[in-house]
Amino acid sequence: MILFSIPILLLLFFNFSISYSKIHHRDPVTYSKSNNLRKYNYHEDYLKVPIDHFTFTTDLEFNLRYFINTDNYKKGGPILFYTGNEGSLESFAENTGFMWDLAPELNAAVVFVEHRFYGKSKPFGNSSYSNIKNLGYLSTEQALGDFAFAVEFFKNGKTIPGAENAAVIAFGGSYGGMLAAWFRIKYPHLVDGAIAASAPVFWFTNSGIPDDIYDFIVTRAFLDAGCNRKAIDKGWMALEEFAKTEDGRQYLNQVFKLDSKSLIEKPEDISFLKGYIRESMEAMAMVNYPYPTSFLGNLPGWPVKEACKSIGSPGKDKEQSAQQLYNIVNLYYNYTGDKTTHCANPEKCQNAFEALGDPLGWPFQTCTEMVMPLCGSGYPNDFFWKDCPFTNSGWSKYCENTFSNIGYNKTLLRWTAGGRTFGAKTLPSASNIVFSNGYLDPWSGGGYSKIDEVRGSVISVILKQGAHHYDLRGAHPLDTEEVKRVRAMETTAIRKWIKEKQQRVRY
Amino acid sequence: MILFSIPILLLLFFNFSISYSKIHHRDPVTYSKSNNLRKYNYHEDYLKVPIDHFTFTTDLEFNLRYFINTDNYKKGGPILFYTGNEGSLESFAENTGFMWDLAPELNAAVVFVEHRFYGKSKPFGNSSYSNIKNLGYLSTEQALGDFAFAVEFFKNGKTIPGAENAAVIAFGGSYGGMLAAWFRIKYPHLVDGAIAASAPVFWFTNSGIPDDIYDFIVTRAFLDAGCNRKAIDKGWMALEEFAKTEDGRQYLNQVFKLDSKSLIEKPEDISFLKGYIRESMEAMAMVNYPYPTSFLGNLPGWPVKEACKSIGSPGKDKEQSAQQLYNIVNLYYNYTGDKTTHCANPEKCQNAFEALGDPLGWPFQTCTEMVMPLCGSGYPNDFFWKDCPFTNSGWSKYCENTFSNIGYNKTLLRWTAGGRTFGAKTLPSASNIVFSNGYLDPWSGGGYSKIDEVRGSVISVILKQGAHHYDLRGAHPLDTEEVKRVRAMETTAIRKWIKEKQQRVRY
Repeated sequence: MILFSIPILLLLFFNFSISYSKIHHRDPVTYSKSNNLRKYNYHEDYLKVPIDHFTFTTDLEFNLRYFINTDNYKKGGPILFYTGNEGSLESFAENTGFMWDLAPELNAAVVFVEHRFYGKSKPFGNSSYSNIKNLGYLSTEQALGDFAFAVEFFKNGKTIPGAENAAVIAFGGSYGGMLAAWFRIKYPHLVDGAIAASAPVFWFTNSGIPDDIYDFIVTRAFLDAGCNRKAIDKGWMALEEFAKTEDGRQYLNQVFKLDSKSLIEKPEDISFLKGYIRESMEAMAMVNYPYPTSFLGNLPGWPVKEACKSIGSPGKDKEQSAQQLYNIVNLYYNYTGDKTTHCANPEKCQNAFEALGDPLGWPFQTCTEMVMPLCGSGYPNDFFWKDCPFTNSGWSKYCENTFSNIGYNKTLLRWTAGGRTFGAKTLPSASNIVFSNGYLDPWSGGGYSKIDEVRGSVISVILKQGAHHYDLRGAHPLDTEEVKRVRAMETTAIRKWIKEKQQRVRY
Repeated sequence: MILFSIPILLLLFFNFSISYSKIHHRDPVTYSKSNNLRKYNYHEDYLKVPIDHFTFTTDLEFNLRYFINTDNYKKGGPILFYTGNEGSLESFAENTGFMWDLAPELNAAVVFVEHRFYGKSKPFGNSSYSNIKNLGYLSTEQALGDFAFAVEFFKNGKTIPGAENAAVIAFGGSYGGMLAAWFRIKYPHLVDGAIAASAPVFWFTNSGIPDDIYDFIVTRAFLDAGCNRKAIDKGWMALEEFAKTEDGRQYLNQVFKLDSKSLIEKPEDISFLKGYIRESMEAMAMVNYPYPTSFLGNLPGWPVKEACKSIGSPGKDKEQSAQQLYNIVNLYYNYTGDKTTHCANPEKCQNAFEALGDPLGWPFQTCTEMVMPLCGSGYPNDFFWKDCPFTNSGWSKYCENTFSNIGYNKTLLRWTAGGRTFGAKTLPSASNIVFSNGYLDPWSGGGYSKIDEVRGSVISVILKQGAHHYDLRGAHPLDTEEVKRVRAMETTAIRKWIKEKQQRVRY
């Protein structure tokens, strides 16, 4: 899930059925505009890594970016290693305050390593995305290969003097959490433990995850926060009604303060407005933190509750019902009140999306090995409408439309590859991992999310008042008691992993 | 270690310093001429797999060969899965009788899957080895990717009806044993357990394995079998002496029945004869089985003991000392007495090597990620002479000489890649694996070879009277009591893994 609806933007170019756009929006992306965050100090540098860790057809290497801070490092301390997700590295460094908070008490070095093909880690510079011979090197396995390479580099005794035998603790949230868990699982000789926050590690085809669970959880979060379902339902009906007439469309354009580029001009245009509203609700469920954040845009504390308050009781008439939905989008997209208009049609609002950086990266990953079935069923499952089931043919079509111009074809859409490589249903050899998930977070539906289970050295915890990787955020005066307990538990686990590593080294 | 000295053959073409040839000989190859073996019935077929499991630069697929026998399969039974090594698949099917013996009692399907780029699994047909763009796809990770793909295929319900939830038990010997262990470790959700026989999983740079341990163990095996070290030492001295004079060289040519192509003509030619003898001793240590085999050529039971008998006491003069070494090579290379001459100079005896199939495959793997430091120290470590230490510069040179004509360069020689990917010193997440090693087998020096250790579900056993993956062979009337016990233990472990899997499926 990201702030701007990238995939819909793509529709402009590839004439793709809009129903699939919904599926695609929901990337486990952890983007931030990071306007009012604490600032952390780090040194930015690059590390040369092979473009291909697992074949030898080319000797090409590229520069992988990393951030490092060794201010608190003392010999014997660990390396806290963030496994970068699908975005520019800055936002992960800025939104993972937990690592920064831990560094002084653990005498730790803190490193963030960028995921290849994102941010400034473009193996082929400006042409990294321009053809399949380049972009084909974007894969989860290769990213893990980069991280493994980086561990060797950080422990070479020069990069962090004294760290030759340091414990390495991986951290990640969302896709980064999947990477952190898999990094520990696939490279246990390099990684001593992992905090995998809100990682939908089982969101694969054939996993048995219901494809409509995401919106089910979104809806549950809103209902639990006091939202009146009838008000929402009436809102959608009102929108459909208004869309039928010229006057009605005019009314909507005015109520929703729609930008001239995204006016509702035909009855069917209502779908993009509905999509815009749906996204705002999905996103607020993800970032439903107890204090104001700017993670996906500026929001108040407990935004879902705020949104529900802004709706209130079912509208008395369709005007009021439409207005109630406007209250939601305006809360999400315009909490600070800076905006005078909304650009709701992603096909027309390109400029906004460009700011995101690498909008085709994650889509490419979902069109190769990271296929994540996602759709909505509508009533009673969720607040929205039926675009389920997720079908292979539909997804293929989307992928071909999106990437055929760079030489992609659907043979590269490997339905079961992610689950085959990483485990679609079980992680039998997992150890020294904390899987944390938030009950409020729609991504928890695909996570290793047993309620407060300890199995060997694998701990699964559900934060009842937790949204998307809340525990990775830095300490805050308004933190819930629950997140404090979870962070304390995670710290205890990390200390244990470090101690075990130190004992092995001594022995 | 293989029957014919492939690497020396390469010297002919690439003018490579002979001292490195020794290093290179010792591939953990499990070739067989399989003349007088039990015959097993299997169906040969092919499976289409992606050329690259971990990147998406190409959609190319190729045909991977497998053998299958489901005669004994009953629903609930396991799939016994041989992870093919660096050679044509037939010899593994024929020399892994243990799997065939197990099939009826376990109601098991038996499958053998070929390693890409060997046998009939050539992704680019005849040009598979002709340039780095093709051969670069030969890697251990990709082979494991093929095997994972094959598991999905065997469990699709069609290939082996009823096997959708079957337990999968991996088997392998030597490099195949490394693959079996890593297959379980990297894909524990697909593989329920592994028998990794004589697998030098820690034979990497930076593992701390002494680079001269191979010949140390060879020498120990000969000494323990009653060999007189002084006789061997005198033999080498005699050879050196004879090589100095024309008459002496003539004498050697006659005693060793050297083929006209491999006559000793100059003093320095003695090195290839010494190499030929050394190899025979190294090979006999590997296949030092209690009954006659034709695994690396026809040999009597306990060939090392036979060789020692054929030497006897130290020679009374240099003629007798030379003759004693001849007895060794003639035992190894000519036990059946068919040969009237020996072709000892690998640079001149090409035809013999061609029979091997894919002689550049394993060398390529050791020139990319599977770098295995190997050399000899001479007295007192071993029977031979000093060609240690193994050096990066020397190995680079060998690799460049061997592969630069296909576009290889030394950037592709990734010293630490194998250990980084698979674990050079520890396998922290290993479970459900039996590591068996033979005390008589020089490869045991790089194995997971704790003496009779049980750590969690990982069992390590050393066969005191065991050579190279003896336990994988089929039952034989002359089997040692020890190997019977080890196979029984392995069978118990396999039954336990199957039962655990069945319980998980029911649950």
